[in-house]
Amino acid sequence: MRAAVLRERQLVVDTVPDPEPQAGEVLVRTLACGICGSDLHMLEHADALVAAARESGVPFGLDPARDVVLGHEFCAEVLALGPDTTAAVRPGDRVVAMPMLFRGSGIVPIGFSNEVPGGYGERMVLSAALALPVPDGLSTEQAALTEPMAVGFHAVAKGAVQAHDTAIVVGCGPVGLAVIAALALRGIAPIVAADYSPLRRELAARMGAQVVVDPATGAVIDAWREAAAPRSCVLFECVGVPGMLAETIRIAPPGTRIVVAGACMEEDRLRPIVAVNKELSLQFVLGYTPDEFAAALAALADGRIDATPLVTDRVGLGGVAGAFRALARPETHAKILVEPWRS
Amino acid sequence: MRAAVLRERQLVVDTVPDPEPQAGEVLVRTLACGICGSDLHMLEHADALVAAARESGVPFGLDPARDVVLGHEFCAEVLALGPDTTAAVRPGDRVVAMPMLFRGSGIVPIGFSNEVPGGYGERMVLSAALALPVPDGLSTEQAALTEPMAVGFHAVAKGAVQAHDTAIVVGCGPVGLAVIAALALRGIAPIVAADYSPLRRELAARMGAQVVVDPATGAVIDAWREAAAPRSCVLFECVGVPGMLAETIRIAPPGTRIVVAGACMEEDRLRPIVAVNKELSLQFVLGYTPDEFAAALAALADGRIDATPLVTDRVGLGGVAGAFRALARPETHAKILVEPWRS
Repeated sequence: MRAAVLRERQLVVDTVPDPEPQAGEVLVRTLACGICGSDLHMLEHADALVAAARESGVPFGLDPARDVVLGHEFCAEVLALGPDTTAAVRPGDRVVAMPMLFRGSGIVPIGFSNEVPGGYGERMVLSAALALPVPDGLSTEQAALTEPMAVGFHAVAKGAVQAHDTAIVVGCGPVGLAVIAALALRGIAPIVAADYSPLRRELAARMGAQVVVDPATGAVIDAWREAAAPRSCVLFECVGVPGMLAETIRIAPPGTRIVVAGACMEEDRLRPIVAVNKELSLQFVLGYTPDEFAAALAALADGRIDATPLVTDRVGLGGVAGAFRALARPETHAKILVEPWRS
Repeated sequence: MRAAVLRERQLVVDTVPDPEPQAGEVLVRTLACGICGSDLHMLEHADALVAAARESGVPFGLDPARDVVLGHEFCAEVLALGPDTTAAVRPGDRVVAMPMLFRGSGIVPIGFSNEVPGGYGERMVLSAALALPVPDGLSTEQAALTEPMAVGFHAVAKGAVQAHDTAIVVGCGPVGLAVIAALALRGIAPIVAADYSPLRRELAARMGAQVVVDPATGAVIDAWREAAAPRSCVLFECVGVPGMLAETIRIAPPGTRIVVAGACMEEDRLRPIVAVNKELSLQFVLGYTPDEFAAALAALADGRIDATPLVTDRVGLGGVAGAFRALARPETHAKILVEPWRS
């Protein structure tokens, strides 16, 4: 099959072996697959990501020197069930799934594996137990956003956000936008969001932020004070570059829970005594639970979240490399979908 | 009255004005007052402490260039009530109190103020509303440990420690020992504690740690794995020097709540991606609530906590400067009490 392959720090279109479903797996045809910030990290910092995972004790068998077909935010069509496999889905069904397989070798992360391809290829194998049918009324594009939306649901859940809380969302890339959607779904208000990009600020408002700030012209904490103080605050750091932790610690009101959803690869510096004086907490978050994944799908399916505006472009396999370059410019894009069936 | 005065980065014994109780305050005679790590910080880094407090938005009107009588961990005897003051205590009663006054100028932190003296002086004024009578059976020495024990109660409460959790306590100075006592009181087991000092390791065991580790000869995380894995873990960082955050993030099992009770004054560095990969949380803590303060006094009074072993020396005012120097050597001391009435 054809796939966009990460090979020697380049994204190249090539023919790779078709994946074969094992027992408990389903073979699918990729319909759409979003490009994630962690995919951008893989292109730039694959060695560092693998090293950090090992340092964290996270099993992550990926060898950056070998081919990887990225892509873990997908909607796909079932082609066939693996041997001795029962599933709640049938050939022809559209499905989404948490991107992992349970094999004898351990958990295989779809989209971060040398062993199986992710969604930047024409076909994948998914875990039959994790495959969820996409309800008829939901577009394939929106279904492909289930995974990033689940990231937002998880961040909000780990932030233990309560009905009386207000929220600050720093950074309105796909993670920040998913956090805003999850907060809005819970009725949290006001949500005060900040991003340098006009496009992302517009998307933040469409996803449910009541107050949207351009950090170039005003401080997000001032906007929050005006709109929400002295209510309690949960602050979501969705940028993930060095200096953001210190900055969020600096601006956070006393007692704030800071949810760190941005994945900063580099070493970072902070002033512990400032966090002590304010009794802050930092909750670092990753991924989501199966319940959160299913809840995100349900919220998209019944229209409680409309994620349509997030999709700013669609590309075929030949456009993947260009899409990665385009995503480095946040003023132009939020989420780009890869559609491997496109010529 | 006589007091040990912090003046131009030196501790000197001098005569200072007697404090005068205002309405809602009681005049007391200091019986015993512990030396705290934050007092050591004040001697070494007063400017930095004040700057950090201002940076944190914490009201802290102290001028390090003017005299300060330190001391906020005290037991005292009531001499008189202020004008128009009703109180649950009477002259002759022994009392402990949260170290703060509520004055027209705002909250005055006893022991960190140019305005009123702390417990390294013969007399103090306390808030009548905060003064708690010391039950008859409780020694003055142990009553003076109410405040540091409350710090341990608070850290454990903020760590949301559950009955099924296990604990790691890194650093067994007075804060770490108070955390161990509070954990043991809740029946948490095993408590795995680490300190380079043989004395402090012995005290850790006496306060309730089941496993005590010398980091020079073995890793605390290995001892925890052997004694407690795979149970959930709350890790208490009670050292507060640069590098400890990165080290606790490095060793913490996935999902660990890290309670940062050590007050690191310097900038510190960490690897956010490691904390993300393990979904760690860092809860920075400071102080305690009135309920926690009262609970600590009750636990000491009814013998559920025996803090007697923590007191490793007693000095008069003339011995304060030497006691500060001695406390820099953790192999010799845990808590030194200042008894201003001693000649």
